[in-house]
Amino acid sequence: MRTESDWRAVQEEALQRRARGERVGFVPTMGFLHRGHTSLFALARPRCDWLVASIFVNPLQFGPTEDLGRYPRDPEGDAAKARAEGVDLLFTPTTLYHRDHSTRVIVDQVSDGLCGASRPTHFEGVATVVARLFGVVQPHVAVFGEKDYQQLQLIRRMTRDLALPIEVIGGPLVRDADGLALSSRNAYLSEEQRTRALSLHQALDDMAEAVAAGTRDAADLLEIGRRRIHADRLDYLEIRDATDLRPLNQVDGPARGFVAATYGGTRLIDNRSLSS
Amino acid sequence: MRTESDWRAVQEEALQRRARGERVGFVPTMGFLHRGHTSLFALARPRCDWLVASIFVNPLQFGPTEDLGRYPRDPEGDAAKARAEGVDLLFTPTTLYHRDHSTRVIVDQVSDGLCGASRPTHFEGVATVVARLFGVVQPHVAVFGEKDYQQLQLIRRMTRDLALPIEVIGGPLVRDADGLALSSRNAYLSEEQRTRALSLHQALDDMAEAVAAGTRDAADLLEIGRRRIHADRLDYLEIRDATDLRPLNQVDGPARGFVAATYGGTRLIDNRSLSS
Repeated sequence: MRTESDWRAVQEEALQRRARGERVGFVPTMGFLHRGHTSLFALARPRCDWLVASIFVNPLQFGPTEDLGRYPRDPEGDAAKARAEGVDLLFTPTTLYHRDHSTRVIVDQVSDGLCGASRPTHFEGVATVVARLFGVVQPHVAVFGEKDYQQLQLIRRMTRDLALPIEVIGGPLVRDADGLALSSRNAYLSEEQRTRALSLHQALDDMAEAVAAGTRDAADLLEIGRRRIHADRLDYLEIRDATDLRPLNQVDGPARGFVAATYGGTRLIDNRSLSS
Repeated sequence: MRTESDWRAVQEEALQRRARGERVGFVPTMGFLHRGHTSLFALARPRCDWLVASIFVNPLQFGPTEDLGRYPRDPEGDAAKARAEGVDLLFTPTTLYHRDHSTRVIVDQVSDGLCGASRPTHFEGVATVVARLFGVVQPHVAVFGEKDYQQLQLIRRMTRDLALPIEVIGGPLVRDADGLALSSRNAYLSEEQRTRALSLHQALDDMAEAVAAGTRDAADLLEIGRRRIHADRLDYLEIRDATDLRPLNQVDGPARGFVAATYGGTRLIDNRSLSS
């Protein structure tokens, strides 16, 4: 595995490999890799000849009061995990933008509500960095985790709207043995906070069980979920269409439950299919 | 020359040709082609193996009170002119966007002021359609006219910021024998309006002469230009940096004069180098 921090060198190699008929795969991350990330590398590996993973904590997608400065980092551990999963090139830019960068990519509709409500410029930052990373890496296929499901749908929409010839694949959410969705931010949690945070996936499971048992009304399902949640602050609990993320009143097709809550200074998200 | 209206077929052929090592060239237009456009085809022709020109009157870049519905069209004449200049594929989509298209590309700074002031969503529409057309056509090289100089700089900035591996080339503005900048919208002008419209390039020429004679102060230069202009309404007359388009008080490097004015219901623009 090669490590490269210069985006021009990455783009040049990507274009050369494409010209030789190789298939380029890409998994962008913010590092501090866990099994959620490595599962994405494993998904991408058989789908390409040359697998690029990036580690870049993108300032554009953090709000002014968020955890950009203390976002956890583990460069050596990340490199070992990427190598073990067969990543060919680890792209680790220290800066990615020109000094006078002035292009913003905004994806409406799918970024309305959910995390888009409490993090107003977050998805603009995500769409912009992914558009730029796609330009650098020139992938045929890119893999994003369903953990950030709204982000995944936003990337799918942007890729479609800008006619990018990139196959976007969603990788299933990976959980710890106790059911907590894996997240680099779990490192912030105290033991007591972590125990309460298990209520997030339990709430989604309760809702899915209720759907399986015949409950269709979103208000009833949300009430079932809300009863379970123990959090310092519940940011949202919602049921949305699984593709375009429009809010649903009834679950009668592909639907998904979404939850965000804070424990101390740590904001966690989770989601799962509620399809009937 | 082949004509194709299906964007998927264009993208498929572009990717196949790139995979075979061919170089793809692209000139996007809104049709009603004149020598300004054909000069861009001629610039692109020797720079690529496969030359695509598009004709698409992009609704996203027209304001609600603008001339989208009456924008002049000449499909047969356009095809003959494109063929004569060696265009290989004329891409003529009737629709280009998905029903629920929701991605916008915004380029700040270079779209501030000038045409960005009087046409508030114009450059968002331009950046979005060009990003999508770049996705479809997958060009190595793309040519845009300096007639729309602010648009050209915006495309350059967007291409840089999104790390698109596309060489963007500006083609010199082409004038009629009387000096009027060629524009599809000149077709709207009465004879009397056209005569007065000559004052636009004359004003820019006066300013360039004054720079050559040693005048450096932008206010003095603008006063010289303003004295010449006969228009129903002067939208703007400005001097800006030739690259990042920031307003200049002094001409002491690469500078450009920009003018926009209306004659009846017709809005015309012109620009020229004022470099000392």
